[in-house]
Amino acid sequence: MVQVGKFELQKQSGEARAARLHTARGVIETPVFMPVGTKGTVKGMLPEELSDLGAQIVLGNTYHLHLRPGEQTVKNLGGLHKFMNWKKPILTDSGGFQVFSLSQLNKVQEEGVEFRSHLDGGKHFLSPETSIQIQMDLGADIIMAFDECLKHPATPEEIQTSMDLTYRWLLRSKAAMTKEDSLLFGIVQGGLDLKLRTRSLEQITSVDLPGYALGGFSVGEPIEMMHSLVKDVAPLLPQHKPRYLMGVGTPLDLVLAVDAGMDMFDCVMPTRVARNGTLFTWSGRVSIKRNEYREDSSPLDPECDCYTCKNYSKAYLRHLYLSGEMLSARLNTIHNLHFYLHLMGRMRVAILEGRWEEFRNHCLTRFAN
Amino acid sequence: MVQVGKFELQKQSGEARAARLHTARGVIETPVFMPVGTKGTVKGMLPEELSDLGAQIVLGNTYHLHLRPGEQTVKNLGGLHKFMNWKKPILTDSGGFQVFSLSQLNKVQEEGVEFRSHLDGGKHFLSPETSIQIQMDLGADIIMAFDECLKHPATPEEIQTSMDLTYRWLLRSKAAMTKEDSLLFGIVQGGLDLKLRTRSLEQITSVDLPGYALGGFSVGEPIEMMHSLVKDVAPLLPQHKPRYLMGVGTPLDLVLAVDAGMDMFDCVMPTRVARNGTLFTWSGRVSIKRNEYREDSSPLDPECDCYTCKNYSKAYLRHLYLSGEMLSARLNTIHNLHFYLHLMGRMRVAILEGRWEEFRNHCLTRFAN
Repeated sequence: MVQVGKFELQKQSGEARAARLHTARGVIETPVFMPVGTKGTVKGMLPEELSDLGAQIVLGNTYHLHLRPGEQTVKNLGGLHKFMNWKKPILTDSGGFQVFSLSQLNKVQEEGVEFRSHLDGGKHFLSPETSIQIQMDLGADIIMAFDECLKHPATPEEIQTSMDLTYRWLLRSKAAMTKEDSLLFGIVQGGLDLKLRTRSLEQITSVDLPGYALGGFSVGEPIEMMHSLVKDVAPLLPQHKPRYLMGVGTPLDLVLAVDAGMDMFDCVMPTRVARNGTLFTWSGRVSIKRNEYREDSSPLDPECDCYTCKNYSKAYLRHLYLSGEMLSARLNTIHNLHFYLHLMGRMRVAILEGRWEEFRNHCLTRFAN
Repeated sequence: MVQVGKFELQKQSGEARAARLHTARGVIETPVFMPVGTKGTVKGMLPEELSDLGAQIVLGNTYHLHLRPGEQTVKNLGGLHKFMNWKKPILTDSGGFQVFSLSQLNKVQEEGVEFRSHLDGGKHFLSPETSIQIQMDLGADIIMAFDECLKHPATPEEIQTSMDLTYRWLLRSKAAMTKEDSLLFGIVQGGLDLKLRTRSLEQITSVDLPGYALGGFSVGEPIEMMHSLVKDVAPLLPQHKPRYLMGVGTPLDLVLAVDAGMDMFDCVMPTRVARNGTLFTWSGRVSIKRNEYREDSSPLDPECDCYTCKNYSKAYLRHLYLSGEMLSARLNTIHNLHFYLHLMGRMRVAILEGRWEEFRNHCLTRFAN
């Protein structure tokens, strides 16, 4: 049996890589996009539908699941996989991002973060030890170290202080990690300054771990800064470990990040904008509510072979959206997730077949951010 | 080829009947429950899922589809079947019920009803001729005559005046009906007075039509009055034509109405209450939000073999409902529709196998209203 955590690099083209990551619940083929299942469900989707779309792994949010229904409840019910009827791998985040973005009155100390729930104002405390314990109780296959996620903009001093704390929290996260068949990933912070990023990367990668992530993006920074930093920093991450770019991004972001050498991605974008009537196509984004689609009998994207595009017209999708029908969110989510997962699959095949540069350039001519 | 509209009585037990109704889009086996697809979608469900659950026919609402997206748009797009990707029969109502219950400032005259849209206040006019034309444009397989649906309570004089108008509107509906492969059903009104009901029934059934409906129930009357009236009136409807009880009801209502000799039913109840967290089981109704289900790993209904019951715990369903997740509505709707459709199927088999009385009594001990 192959060792859990083994990362097989299959092919590299420039910095872009195709690989296989072994987890306790099967192999993840990278580059991979991970749909976000915030509260134990990828909004509106059945697990079987996600599988059919090619999803290999989904994300669960520690912050949300801790508050409701609570990790003890999930554990008592057999773990998150059983709870949500998803048999493939699950990655949980550390809860840090939501503590800093959603909760009220959070108070950071060396020990951890005290915060109030956005649901009922109840007082909670998250530390490296509690975050890891929650993720172990949920039964995640990939567990993220507890980090501090600073708001943008921040001063160099704030960034330095924060990334040093994140480093100390990583050491405590690793010490707290006792679930042998799960993989702990460390998170590189360091804001938008290349020197600080590089220093954080050196700190984090000095700890031997089965994978590393770049965190602290998608916090309101200019997108070109993110592209540029990822391009510079990704190649500095250990080559024979999976590299995860957290919370990113648009199709263009994904192509550029794969080109820079990143392997794993998650983002609420495809599912969230689907519910708002925005759809990704190979000819750009479509706002389905537009009047021009009123009697448009053509599919959303003639190049797409997803269930939505094969069975419904733009006119029907527009009608469902304007009528506030639940089926609107479903059909749009199916399409957008198909688009993302299919894009990742095509990137992987292009790398494996030695056509990466060509495919990347094709994507760059098609996608705007 | 069998004639469209042919109604084959297969077996009768007391007044309860099992039959087959031939439509242009295939046979409907009765007793049958028709899920309600108000605006061109049964809320949250894919057409394939409805088929898998055993749905044979769905309902579309003339009032809603007329206002949005408009019957001309639907017609230009190939009809309602193609629009919503449903290949089996569709029944449309006449729009009357919604005009009287949803719209503002409706004004009834001999010619028809003027009303203002509940969406934007726009002025509209519905008459027997326009209602039938809209339903023909939508491409319905079963088309309902345009009737006046009085509020409860009404005086005998109001009922008499209204049912006479409904009769004249039926004659005009029939004259307007030119779509040969669709079936026009007339609607018996007459309020809650047996004498007036019977008189309306005589008026309506004096017109030769492929089917007849009882309308004007579910308008706030005591449920026992409905049960009693249906029991008295159903057997007076032509024996060799389908009999449709509109807008009813609970599982108990359905069993009693089948026992009285009714064949077809529609109701928003299973889908609407599903979205509100109420689920039908053979042990009664379940409110899924109850605290006792917090860590309940058992399925909603151990006697049920629907997708929801086979794959999820009460605890998960409770969590989804409390979290306001779309999947809550989906999983609950799947269960409730399965419950209704399965109940109808079991009633049909019991009639065919000569076990109707026994099965009816079994249901009566299980269901409360």
